[in-house]
Amino acid sequence: MPEPATPSYLLLGPFAQLIPMAGLALKGPLRDADMPVLTNAGLLLQGAEIVATGPYDILEQQARELRADHFRPDGDAVCLPGLIDSHTHSCFAGSRARDYALRNSGSTYLEIAEAGGGIWDTVTQTRKADPTTLERLLRERCKRFTADGITTLEVKSGYGLSVEAELKMLRVIRSAAARVVQDLVPTCLAAHMVPRDFEGSAEAYLKHIENDLLPVVRTEGLADRVDAFVERSAFSPQQIGPFFEAARRMGFGITVHADQFTTGGSAAAIAGGALSADHLEASGPAEVAALANSSVIATALPGASLGLGCGYTPARALLDAGGSLAIASDFNPGSAPMGDLLAQAAILGAAEKLSNAEVLAGITFRAAAALGLNDRGRLEAGKKADLVVFPCDHYNEILYHQGRLKPVSVWKNGRCVLDLSKTAS
Amino acid sequence: MPEPATPSYLLLGPFAQLIPMAGLALKGPLRDADMPVLTNAGLLLQGAEIVATGPYDILEQQARELRADHFRPDGDAVCLPGLIDSHTHSCFAGSRARDYALRNSGSTYLEIAEAGGGIWDTVTQTRKADPTTLERLLRERCKRFTADGITTLEVKSGYGLSVEAELKMLRVIRSAAARVVQDLVPTCLAAHMVPRDFEGSAEAYLKHIENDLLPVVRTEGLADRVDAFVERSAFSPQQIGPFFEAARRMGFGITVHADQFTTGGSAAAIAGGALSADHLEASGPAEVAALANSSVIATALPGASLGLGCGYTPARALLDAGGSLAIASDFNPGSAPMGDLLAQAAILGAAEKLSNAEVLAGITFRAAAALGLNDRGRLEAGKKADLVVFPCDHYNEILYHQGRLKPVSVWKNGRCVLDLSKTAS
Repeated sequence: MPEPATPSYLLLGPFAQLIPMAGLALKGPLRDADMPVLTNAGLLLQGAEIVATGPYDILEQQARELRADHFRPDGDAVCLPGLIDSHTHSCFAGSRARDYALRNSGSTYLEIAEAGGGIWDTVTQTRKADPTTLERLLRERCKRFTADGITTLEVKSGYGLSVEAELKMLRVIRSAAARVVQDLVPTCLAAHMVPRDFEGSAEAYLKHIENDLLPVVRTEGLADRVDAFVERSAFSPQQIGPFFEAARRMGFGITVHADQFTTGGSAAAIAGGALSADHLEASGPAEVAALANSSVIATALPGASLGLGCGYTPARALLDAGGSLAIASDFNPGSAPMGDLLAQAAILGAAEKLSNAEVLAGITFRAAAALGLNDRGRLEAGKKADLVVFPCDHYNEILYHQGRLKPVSVWKNGRCVLDLSKTAS
Repeated sequence: MPEPATPSYLLLGPFAQLIPMAGLALKGPLRDADMPVLTNAGLLLQGAEIVATGPYDILEQQARELRADHFRPDGDAVCLPGLIDSHTHSCFAGSRARDYALRNSGSTYLEIAEAGGGIWDTVTQTRKADPTTLERLLRERCKRFTADGITTLEVKSGYGLSVEAELKMLRVIRSAAARVVQDLVPTCLAAHMVPRDFEGSAEAYLKHIENDLLPVVRTEGLADRVDAFVERSAFSPQQIGPFFEAARRMGFGITVHADQFTTGGSAAAIAGGALSADHLEASGPAEVAALANSSVIATALPGASLGLGCGYTPARALLDAGGSLAIASDFNPGSAPMGDLLAQAAILGAAEKLSNAEVLAGITFRAAAALGLNDRGRLEAGKKADLVVFPCDHYNEILYHQGRLKPVSVWKNGRCVLDLSKTAS
């Protein structure tokens, strides 16, 4: 549907509370008392963009002059920026429910791999899947994320692990992006591990990606970002340095799977000028201090902690040291099969003692920063009109219910993409 | 609606898998390999009761001869006993979202109480609420539990803390019980704490309950069970002993909030001949061994661990020592506001390395045993026809999705109380 030449105005409100997340710092601790809260507030949109936020009465006058349309929530409602999930592996085929059961029954990583499980199972299933099937699966997952209030979703490749299969994944993500609610942010994760069927060293595999895959990704515009898994089972910091350097020269942004089980990855992220270092469950005081002193966004992935039954990313320590903290779901079929960003962010907040402001920042503007996006994550004039509305009278309620309070409406680029008040009435 | 004189027959199936939980021991570890799984299976009901489980083809012949009705699931489906939540505080008024925010922002228990929060806030709100409002809130929560597959729900009083207000709560629970899907199992928790407005010692308060409340509860048939919070902030093991003894003499079953922050409660539960000892996050090897050697069902409450951000009940150790483990939500407005039994049980399973069989036992027949109920929790002839159907082809999928895979249909006493396949098609 083509946009009209002059996008029309739309007034949303009144909201019991509107939480613009405006004016809050990108780094360091945040107190709820410092988080701006507009009560009895409205939001004026023009097309896909926010024109103004403010007291509802004042915006209503303005809206009348502009002949704006009007969306009025049913009952008490709290409006937040649309949620941003900055780290997911949502494009995959197959289930790893058996791995999960084996792991919880005490099987080791090796035993699971020998039983035909582990990441290689997902690679095999994803390689086998035709693009139509892969895209259908991804689009079904995006529908669920819409109901969760997610309006921007990062999606990694990394289950192809050959030039052909990685390109298939990235093309599927691009094709899905035109058909789902969310903006999909694709990331090339060909450096997820050295594939079993690659004949050569880790260095040779990275060189192969650099020479034979990344140029095609650039030419076709399939992704602006490159990710790598820096871990004993994948690539060492020494191996990944030259790869990041080459990717940066080609114009890619960098993000890193870092310090999940052993350290080294976060230092590689800092050295590589990465946008974000994700996982960090194994980060100690030295890694925390180095991250806080860098421009890298630290990203906690509580879904992996819950899925594997491990400890959490030291989120409190990262913030207290002055770092920036995003929170993402890591949704994937192996270690993080839940895929519920809000529930996981709330659970992390309770475990790590994070304020509402810190948790909400982690899934809005700080997550946007982890993706290098400045046009979203805060409700203020000039930003994208991506927003989520919860049926409650105070923002405290949203995290308190630990994922059980679902949005009553969701807006993407100024369009209503979910409205449960209508279906209920 | 009166039941017909001869209840009619109903055949359910075919199911990809039917997990009857039959033949599994009440105590000790359980392996998935030992859990009976019927494939391509059916379930024959007569009225509210299970007549037979078995291969679908055979039951279909039998059903034809009995002129049974037929419910056929859409696509692959796995059938389990209806879920049982054996520890909840689902009857309350008010929100403690502010407490939750303050706690995560670093406020102490004392600071929260001084700010007007804590359990006394819920007592005040619940005392103020009229019975109609309280019942409406409880019934709304039960609707959500139906969608979660819960067919039996324990509900405690304990936010009244006066004879009058405790009776109000128990009468509300009884009134709601006639109008909700679940069997509600009421428990008198007047011994939740010494109420602020009681003039006298802890011993005097317990004597007051014993003399002035419990006889009325008995006479009106409002509850068969008595619970107490054994903890430094509430009642000591020494104080609670005579109270349990008196309650038992009156014919009440006993259950205990035990070892949540400090030990002593589980020993009191064993000494008091309790059905279950719930919480146990602080239980050490001595408590674990004593529980395992007793007939007390140990009940893990992962919702409280997630809500407070604390460690989990040592579920693995309890099972390995030979104990029986139930898993319940502890749904309450203070420490466990999520109220999602399946998600919490799965998360506990991943953290504590519990098999599918152990987790599913904890929310079916072992939870039934914690409530002293022998008529449910397993799908076998003669048991209640309470069951839940998940849209998947293998039981592994149910816990793997950590609460995100919701039932497609739910049956209570042989009646379909939720059927999403119909609304979807």
